[in-house]
Amino acid sequence: MTRILHIDSSPRGEVSHSRRMTREFVKQWKQNHPGDTVTYRDIGRNSIPHVDEPWIAAAFTPIEQRTPELWEAIKISDRLVDEFLAADIYVIGVPMYNFSVLSAFKAYIDQIVRIGRTVDFEPENFENPYKPLVLNKKMFIITARGGSDFGAGERNEKQNHQDPYLRTVFGFIGITDITFIHVEKDEQGEKKLAESIAFARIQIAQLVKG
Amino acid sequence: MTRILHIDSSPRGEVSHSRRMTREFVKQWKQNHPGDTVTYRDIGRNSIPHVDEPWIAAAFTPIEQRTPELWEAIKISDRLVDEFLAADIYVIGVPMYNFSVLSAFKAYIDQIVRIGRTVDFEPENFENPYKPLVLNKKMFIITARGGSDFGAGERNEKQNHQDPYLRTVFGFIGITDITFIHVEKDEQGEKKLAESIAFARIQIAQLVKG
Repeated sequence: MTRILHIDSSPRGEVSHSRRMTREFVKQWKQNHPGDTVTYRDIGRNSIPHVDEPWIAAAFTPIEQRTPELWEAIKISDRLVDEFLAADIYVIGVPMYNFSVLSAFKAYIDQIVRIGRTVDFEPENFENPYKPLVLNKKMFIITARGGSDFGAGERNEKQNHQDPYLRTVFGFIGITDITFIHVEKDEQGEKKLAESIAFARIQIAQLVKG
Repeated sequence: MTRILHIDSSPRGEVSHSRRMTREFVKQWKQNHPGDTVTYRDIGRNSIPHVDEPWIAAAFTPIEQRTPELWEAIKISDRLVDEFLAADIYVIGVPMYNFSVLSAFKAYIDQIVRIGRTVDFEPENFENPYKPLVLNKKMFIITARGGSDFGAGERNEKQNHQDPYLRTVFGFIGITDITFIHVEKDEQGEKKLAESIAFARIQIAQLVKG
């Protein structure tokens, strides 16, 4: 049985492109793989707290030395990590906001990148002390962004800290099989946006067969 | 009279390198420019909320059409923008966290990048619809990061979504005079860290004379 974790990070409701497209993706995936299960997490509309000092103290204290206060400080993180690790496939909607991900999604990332749980730290291995722990997963990320031309060699490449960032940080914990679908050009008129959505739908129709 | 906005974004207290170094910077700056005033904002320890749907509705509703609820939804943002615009010089401490800025600092960025206040949007100018509004400012950013070799052409350049990101997003609202001071190598032993701190101190001693 394959377990899907479906995540939305847009703060917007029905008008959100990324939200609509992840829903279409998961619906079509289920039609092609009726036995798979889906867990849904709405980061965009259910706030994820920022990492704070007790969180850091807890995350870097060995389990056997943790006080009840420290356990409390990373309770949300532990729950999010459990949920994340339980999935085989991720379908995530990520709007570009100020050239990167929204702070709510960054808060989620900061909660799930955890030493000893999603990545190991081996200080004696000076050149490469981090060892990813989240292996054999598959990730589909549907981005939404008002502009365009953010790809390699394109004119806005250097301003793009969205999908290259997501490859970096998810790769860091071991997820390297990542497919991006971009819904773009919301700021360039209805026709261009409609073309981008149509192309995203074609990609989704192909990917859900996989 | 020059007004300094001093911002810390580390969730950690006295052990934070960026926090200690911004404090040293501001103290030395004041010695060299006794007439300047300082406003302090501690993002790391006083949580900044994520942008949510009412925030977006408010920010994109013309002032004359805003309801009391919409004004309420961007009250924090307005206050942060007022404070930001009132400054001439920024001294900001920004730890690298998961290859980028902490979600708390991203939340701050999402709050202060505001159409009509820090950047204008002119849809008729298709090629370049955004017009920066925060002009003639100077920014000093002291970063802290466990690793190293994040510079242009260096081995971790592609993983670095901290200072290149900050140049992008602050450049977007008009701040292009940005100087970075990096405290690095916390994960590479005390000696290397001490060297990095010593070098940062030399840079600070020169910069505060400007």
